Amino acid sequence: MDKIAIVDTMFARFDMGAVAENELKRQPGFGNRFEIVRTTVPGIKDLAVACKRLIERENCLLVLAFGMPGRADLDQLSAHEASLGIVAAQLLTNTPILQVFVHESESDDQEELRTIARERSAKHAINACWMLYEPEQLKQRAGKGIRQGSADAGSL
Amino acid sequence: MDKIAIVDTMFARFDMGAVAENELKRQPGFGNRFEIVRTTVPGIKDLAVACKRLIERENCLLVLAFGMPGRADLDQLSAHEASLGIVAAQLLTNTPILQVFVHESESDDQEELRTIARERSAKHAINACWMLYEPEQLKQRAGKGIRQGSADAGSL
Amino acid sequence: MDKIAIVDTMFARFDMGAVAENELKRQPGFGNRFEIVRTTVPGIKDLAVACKRLIERENCLLVLAFGMPGRADLDQLSAHEASLGIVAAQLLTNTPILQVFVHESESDDQEELRTIARERSAKHAINACWMLYEPEQLKQRAGKGIRQGSADAGSL
Amino acid sequence: MDKIAIVDTMFARFDMGAVAENELKRQPGFGNRFEIVRTTVPGIKDLAVACKRLIERENCLLVLAFGMPGRADLDQLSAHEASLGIVAAQLLTNTPILQVFVHESESDDQEELRTIARERSAKHAINACWMLYEPEQLKQRAGKGIRQGSADAGSL
Amino acid sequence: MDKIAIVDTMFARFDMGAVAENELKRQPGFGNRFEIVRTTVPGIKDLAVACKRLIERENCLLVLAFGMPGRADLDQLSAHEASLGIVAAQLLTNTPILQVFVHESESDDQEELRTIARERSAKHAINACWMLYEPEQLKQRAGKGIRQGSADAGSL
Repeated sequence: MDKIAIVDTMFARFDMGAVAENELKRQPGFGNRFEIVRTTVPGIKDLAVACKRLIERENCLLVLAFGMPGRADLDQLSAHEASLGIVAAQLLTNTPILQVFVHESESDDQEELRTIARERSAKHAINACWMLYEPEQLKQRAGKGIRQGSADAGSL
Repeated sequence: MDKIAIVDTMFARFDMGAVAENELKRQPGFGNRFEIVRTTVPGIKDLAVACKRLIERENCLLVLAFGMPGRADLDQLSAHEASLGIVAAQLLTNTPILQVFVHESESDDQEELRTIARERSAKHAINACWMLYEPEQLKQRAGKGIRQGSADAGSL
Repeated sequence: MDKIAIVDTMFARFDMGAVAENELKRQPGFGNRFEIVRTTVPGIKDLAVACKRLIERENCLLVLAFGMPGRADLDQLSAHEASLGIVAAQLLTNTPILQVFVHESESDDQEELRTIARERSAKHAINACWMLYEPEQLKQRAGKGIRQGSADAGSL
Repeated sequence: MDKIAIVDTMFARFDMGAVAENELKRQPGFGNRFEIVRTTVPGIKDLAVACKRLIERENCLLVLAFGMPGRADLDQLSAHEASLGIVAAQLLTNTPILQVFVHESESDDQEELRTIARERSAKHAINACWMLYEPEQLKQRAGKGIRQGSADAGSL
Repeated sequence: MDKIAIVDTMFARFDMGAVAENELKRQPGFGNRFEIVRTTVPGIKDLAVACKRLIERENCLLVLAFGMPGRADLDQLSAHEASLGIVAAQLLTNTPILQVFVHESESDDQEELRTIARERSAKHAINACWMLYEPEQLKQRAGKGIRQGSADAGSL
């Protein structure tokens, strides 16, 4: 059975991994075509190697990597460094890792942040399945201004 | 037959991949010397690994990678990270990937942005063919201030 | 016996490595399941290769890398470069390296800085053991806003 | 016969590659010890992989990579990304690539920019020969504040 | 006999490599345990690959890499890019490269800059020997706020 991995952090202030797990379980292939592997690391810069290990040691076909950088400048820099690591991990494994970060700076309103985190996590869980099993879903939306966690921007 | 790949995103607000595909189809070698492979990913940071996979698994000789970063600082940072990934993917595969990004910040006028996106995509599709089949076209234009998506800057 | 490595610098103004070593020695597995390897390098940019050598030559299963960047802009930049190196070292070795940096800019009060350094070092020593021997401890805290060196931020 | 490569862009607004080619042809070893290989790519971010291919496929011993970033912030960022790619290409091939960039922001005066571009290109062509055939020329100038494209800064 | 390498630039305005060479010659192991290899490159971005070549082709056990970035923003950026290259070169060779940069921006006073350059170069030459032959010297100074080129910051 295929494996989709979820990797998240203790640092994040919302359990995005749980949302993604629930969404994945609602997808058609769950339980027959793919199963879910989950792991948690301390912080955002620990994600990349954790993703790489799940790909190489557990043969995961795709990873969803969740993080929630704080408002501090140092947190923003950590997110940037983590992100470069995730890009590198993808190239070294030839495997997609969907980086699902919600920045606390995206909203001053906690309820809105929760909504962004929930929506973004769920939408990327669906993207994960599309990438593996229905790539034509992505192709149909090429250049359409699709967003995760906010309203679609739409075409110009 | 050679393969030229087009990779674009759902995030972009203009279907640059379609413009490039049409332009490639107008080039002399289309259908006999080269064919086109297309794939779409969610966002800009998913491009690099998708390009690398097409090069290594589908033997594509060159990839056109399209993205349209938004105006937000976080979008600009994503574009930078994506770009470093595309540079790395080229080095790891010894294969050119033409990065065709249109930044929403390039113009406040939607019609102008569309024009930039259209022109840049078409010009880079031609560059792709030149790189593979007519490198002397590039050599003749060395240092001539050639632009894609705006008027040529010309020589100093 | 497993090995956990501690790498720190002469540049840092607090002996974070000693705190971590003491904390590790209080953990259940110490002396039977794992032993400690320690090394010191001049500055923060010397950490990444030192970690990689300990992983590859001493077979360390996990490294704690300690640094304390100064307030100067050049120090901040060095920390960023060091951090990218540590991310890369993890990917090249498939081994977690917990980056434990305390920035002098985090507080103007020396006593508070010492407290941050002490707490962060101890907490990450515990994280190291959890990653190797009790990963469910991390999983239970996914998305709970856990911090090291300051009060937990908690869930949104 | 040894090969020295020149790689430049259509984007640049001055034909720095031609200046370097002429300078190389004036050097003692030209035609007996080394020959010149030239290629042109669209823009600055296409340089790194082109250099790497010339090194690995054409066995070039050294590459001169020419670029002229524009004044726009996006151009400056592209130059930074290109530069990191060139650093990486050197490390992956164990071969020197002299990065010869002239930034339009270096002067508001077009004639001065042309002079900078001309001088820098010629000086680096000489550096290329020194690196391969007369390394003692470089050693004699260690720490002497040597510049290319402007007056030497001299020793402190 | 072991080899320690010194790599410096023509760009620097002070002959830091000479200071380091003299200091190394005063160390106990010189001439019996280790010898010195020296090379000079044009500028700071040429350091990383030169270091890597000396490690891989000349079997140098450690490299001291000297640079002196100017005050211009472009020089600062070059230093950052060079620094990332040096970090990468260390990881690719599993060999320490001590990056010894003096930024002209560190002081407006030329005499002070010379002093910084002299002290930093000498101190890092000693660090090099400690890393290879007396690692306990480094361990004893862990977290003690040791500096090179200015007074030690001391412990918090």
